[in-house]
Amino acid sequence: MNMDPRRIIIKEVGPRDGLQNEPDFVATEDKIAWINQLSRSGLSYIEITSFVHPKWIPALADAVEVAAGIERVPGVTYAALVPNAKGLERALSVHVDEVSIFLSASETHNQKNINKSIADTYPILQETARAALAAGKSVRGYVSTVFGCPYEGAVSVDEVIRVTERLLDMGVSEVSLGDTIGVAHPRQVRDVLEILLKRFPAERLALHFHDTRGMGMANVLVALEMGISTFDSALGGLGGCPYAPGASGNLATDDLLYLLDGMGMDTGVEPDKLVTAARFLQEKMGRRFPSHRMQICE
Amino acid sequence: MNMDPRRIIIKEVGPRDGLQNEPDFVATEDKIAWINQLSRSGLSYIEITSFVHPKWIPALADAVEVAAGIERVPGVTYAALVPNAKGLERALSVHVDEVSIFLSASETHNQKNINKSIADTYPILQETARAALAAGKSVRGYVSTVFGCPYEGAVSVDEVIRVTERLLDMGVSEVSLGDTIGVAHPRQVRDVLEILLKRFPAERLALHFHDTRGMGMANVLVALEMGISTFDSALGGLGGCPYAPGASGNLATDDLLYLLDGMGMDTGVEPDKLVTAARFLQEKMGRRFPSHRMQICE
Repeated sequence: MNMDPRRIIIKEVGPRDGLQNEPDFVATEDKIAWINQLSRSGLSYIEITSFVHPKWIPALADAVEVAAGIERVPGVTYAALVPNAKGLERALSVHVDEVSIFLSASETHNQKNINKSIADTYPILQETARAALAAGKSVRGYVSTVFGCPYEGAVSVDEVIRVTERLLDMGVSEVSLGDTIGVAHPRQVRDVLEILLKRFPAERLALHFHDTRGMGMANVLVALEMGISTFDSALGGLGGCPYAPGASGNLATDDLLYLLDGMGMDTGVEPDKLVTAARFLQEKMGRRFPSHRMQICE
Repeated sequence: MNMDPRRIIIKEVGPRDGLQNEPDFVATEDKIAWINQLSRSGLSYIEITSFVHPKWIPALADAVEVAAGIERVPGVTYAALVPNAKGLERALSVHVDEVSIFLSASETHNQKNINKSIADTYPILQETARAALAAGKSVRGYVSTVFGCPYEGAVSVDEVIRVTERLLDMGVSEVSLGDTIGVAHPRQVRDVLEILLKRFPAERLALHFHDTRGMGMANVLVALEMGISTFDSALGGLGGCPYAPGASGNLATDDLLYLLDGMGMDTGVEPDKLVTAARFLQEKMGRRFPSHRMQICE
């Protein structure tokens, strides 16, 4: 096991992936105040919102206001999700450091999520990436359903390789491999990474786990041992199914930090400041977040 | 990483460790019906109750009735916690296959939990073990606070070695190493096991994780990789702090099974039957259990 201490990048996706399915709209000023707290917690990367059309993600309809309203702390990369050139235009109008483009490794999920086949999605992403790079922005690529699809079940690693290659060809600096429905288990993570790491350098890959079945942390451990150093997570474990109060969504940043700190990894993040930021938003949203950290009796 | 598929024993401690701190008494007939369901789920070991004096654990005041009332399914070991010779006598009066004795690796926790120093606890355990063995029962030993103490903080591995050795000298067949307050992280588990496995064979050690900080599954993974094949867990993640509804207690058997099944380990347990058993008790207790499995929207 390679558990050698090293620098690990936590990419905080709470303001985007954590909030995007929330049935109750979080006030723009609260989002801004929350992101400002995250900015001062030592996190070096925050995905602040999504420029997908508000018709599809009403919870983040205030993307422009949020991006325009937050403080920019030096050393923090502020990223946003963009679906296409139009979304990119909105994102550029309010300045973001990096944009994320996305597609799925499984045809049916891509169809349901983007309303297009994977093949038809490529040109849109290509155009978006080209325009973003031309504007001097870095681009990140998300691949959804890497470890399983809610419609198709198993997803072939060949498909994951294909879309990852296409994204890298478009000039993305990093591909984030998403376990969208939280079905991955450690052996699968090892098996998939073993194949991918023969094709792609570890520095090009990030892992994006959801904790739906409680495997998130064990999966991080395997990925860490295999040389991955970038992980997406959402403070408090926000995200997932908003209709089941205790349901876990994204891997929780606060819990992930406990793991990484315990293993002697260097993240730069201050746990107390994360908890303060989580408490702030808990109060605004009127509920306790599902992360283990936020459940501890105190 | 040694993830080779092999036989893994899950020791279900829900009826004892899961229920012992519940503020609302679970009716004896419901406990019996639940244990009967567990008995038919493929589990090979169930800790059914505790014969600690009801003054200390009122939630399990019906230990005798439970032990007398359950069906005994061939192939399942029915165990119970006993604090001393008197508790053992009660346990023997209603037949259990195995008894568990317990102490802490940290002086202060032992003092608060057992009201005696570690040194003064040994003779009591010795007497209990001797009487149990004489009655033809096997004996298991629990060591609490192996990875940290709520009063003393860090716990020395030397202390863990000392109490483990004493328990084995008394004739216990297995020592269960407890992360009582759920503070262990994977590096610590590796470091502690590396030392312990130089002194004791893996077959003599079980791991008993609590998921308080969300590290349970990652800790299991490390222990598995290091050759441990016996894990304690509680269905639904029962246990822990009953005053925080979503708080995680014991590692959840249902979630653990997802990990082990995914890794190709052979447990003999049928996941659907576990979920049915969990649903039964959820209904009786009027709340959703904190395991990930029981949170999934359906």
